[in-house]
Amino acid sequence: MSDKVLVYSRFPKAMMARFADRFDLMQTGGKPPAEVFSATELSRVRAIITSGSTLMGAKHMDVLPSLEAIVCYGTGYDGIDLAEAAKRKIAVCNSPAANAASVADIAVTLMLAVTRRLLPADHYVRSGDWAAAKPSPLMSAQAGNVGRKIGVYGMGAIGRKIAARLAAFETEVAYHSRSRHDVPYRYEPDLAALAEWCNVLMIAVRAGPDTHHIIGAEMLRKLGPDGFVVNISRGSVIDQAALVAALADKAIAGAGLDVYEKEPHAPDALTAFPNVVLTPHVGGHTLESHAAMQACVMANLEAFFAGEMLPFPVRVAR
Amino acid sequence: MSDKVLVYSRFPKAMMARFADRFDLMQTGGKPPAEVFSATELSRVRAIITSGSTLMGAKHMDVLPSLEAIVCYGTGYDGIDLAEAAKRKIAVCNSPAANAASVADIAVTLMLAVTRRLLPADHYVRSGDWAAAKPSPLMSAQAGNVGRKIGVYGMGAIGRKIAARLAAFETEVAYHSRSRHDVPYRYEPDLAALAEWCNVLMIAVRAGPDTHHIIGAEMLRKLGPDGFVVNISRGSVIDQAALVAALADKAIAGAGLDVYEKEPHAPDALTAFPNVVLTPHVGGHTLESHAAMQACVMANLEAFFAGEMLPFPVRVAR
Repeated sequence: MSDKVLVYSRFPKAMMARFADRFDLMQTGGKPPAEVFSATELSRVRAIITSGSTLMGAKHMDVLPSLEAIVCYGTGYDGIDLAEAAKRKIAVCNSPAANAASVADIAVTLMLAVTRRLLPADHYVRSGDWAAAKPSPLMSAQAGNVGRKIGVYGMGAIGRKIAARLAAFETEVAYHSRSRHDVPYRYEPDLAALAEWCNVLMIAVRAGPDTHHIIGAEMLRKLGPDGFVVNISRGSVIDQAALVAALADKAIAGAGLDVYEKEPHAPDALTAFPNVVLTPHVGGHTLESHAAMQACVMANLEAFFAGEMLPFPVRVAR
Repeated sequence: MSDKVLVYSRFPKAMMARFADRFDLMQTGGKPPAEVFSATELSRVRAIITSGSTLMGAKHMDVLPSLEAIVCYGTGYDGIDLAEAAKRKIAVCNSPAANAASVADIAVTLMLAVTRRLLPADHYVRSGDWAAAKPSPLMSAQAGNVGRKIGVYGMGAIGRKIAARLAAFETEVAYHSRSRHDVPYRYEPDLAALAEWCNVLMIAVRAGPDTHHIIGAEMLRKLGPDGFVVNISRGSVIDQAALVAALADKAIAGAGLDVYEKEPHAPDALTAFPNVVLTPHVGGHTLESHAAMQACVMANLEAFFAGEMLPFPVRVAR
């Protein structure tokens, strides 16, 4: 009999096809496992595949008494109570850096699109307003990138790739993270000072309790009325209500978001703005990125069932 | 009395404010000058400001018998019959490279947006389809940039900046132009071979009679069903009807366009596609770019009226 793996989050079937060939997948479809499987069935589960942002705390682990491995599809593991997992000797592993290029690309796409007003521009052409020479205040000339001050918050694999891409646009790049990295950009030890200095804040920090709502009203005000914020990390890093208020008050110029506080929901207050660009958490959603993430998930699961060392364990910096 | 300058194309007033302070501007509003001014008034015009893509051939010059200087706002001068101007000893000057960064940025913005399906993605969020978990074939995973083959057609100031930006996305860049340049990208002496090799063709060639419709049905077919074309040069470089046909037949995957054959008109056949991103010729439309272009125009006009050498004459490679 093949090894059983519980698919804890809702994933499109195509993303799981490779694992279905190798393992006996128990699909929850994103529902609480106890609604889909019997307690007996769940009591035998030793490994799960989860999205990393799906909540997995003590009460969720209680339902899976034999759980030994939490395998995250993607780089994030912010939904998982790592201390609780450690207490129960449950290994947590992820797909580190597998999607970094793909996520960095979406970050830059959002930044370019929002600063150059791509969506209103496309609409101006498609609606016929351009042909009709209709005046459009949204089509006034905007600041370009040369000399633009880019603040990158987080200098992991994704932050580095965002910085490298944006530096090629003749911008000035500085960054903030817990510690200085060996990168050719100015280190700013204070996040608030970075927000004050920069024109565009690119959020690429790992999400967790210490970064929850760290970008709030005050930080957004520091960006100023010509400032932009782009988030490809997790929705929890930005206080979304404060962001909506900042956009409504024109305290900032615009935002590009791939992630939201309560996915897959982007509140109406946000979707009503013309000066935001919104993508449905597709940062890591490229063919290469899925292939790389799946390779990590597969390697983690294979090693687990073979009783070997997990190749991509989550190591938490203290 | 201040020097008279005929504003030959239709420009927004704000773009002309700086010149209005210094010169006595005769505004045509984009109409034929003879409809707006008397023959006597036009017979005294020695200098014009034009967009470069506005047609200026023998019959247009006939209306301006005292014309000595054609000053293009922007880098392009494809509308101007240079041979005819030379015959009449009319100087032609432009704003070389002043908008290169701004145009290159739009080129990359269009490329990223069309390859990652930014517009359908934003619509998927705003429409509520994401929240409703509606299946969307347009949201399937796409190829990312790592290793993507980028063909840059034209290696002037704009082509170089496009190449430098896209190389930072971990792509492979090759280019075609009349001659090899001292740049760190592979030179491909044959345009058709470049189209065959690349996945994205970025058009940054100077428009003129020799490039008219050079990208037609055959060249587009070489890009293939996974291939994209991005044009920020001039609409005349692409056979627009062939492009519409290629999109309809799925002979290519998509297109990003800032320029069109008959601006400001983008045909309905083009605006109906979800896999195109269309901007209203805003490549050079940033604050810095306008400031730089205006500085060139001003320097050209000042020198002309002072009887000095024009600082930015158009020099035609033969």
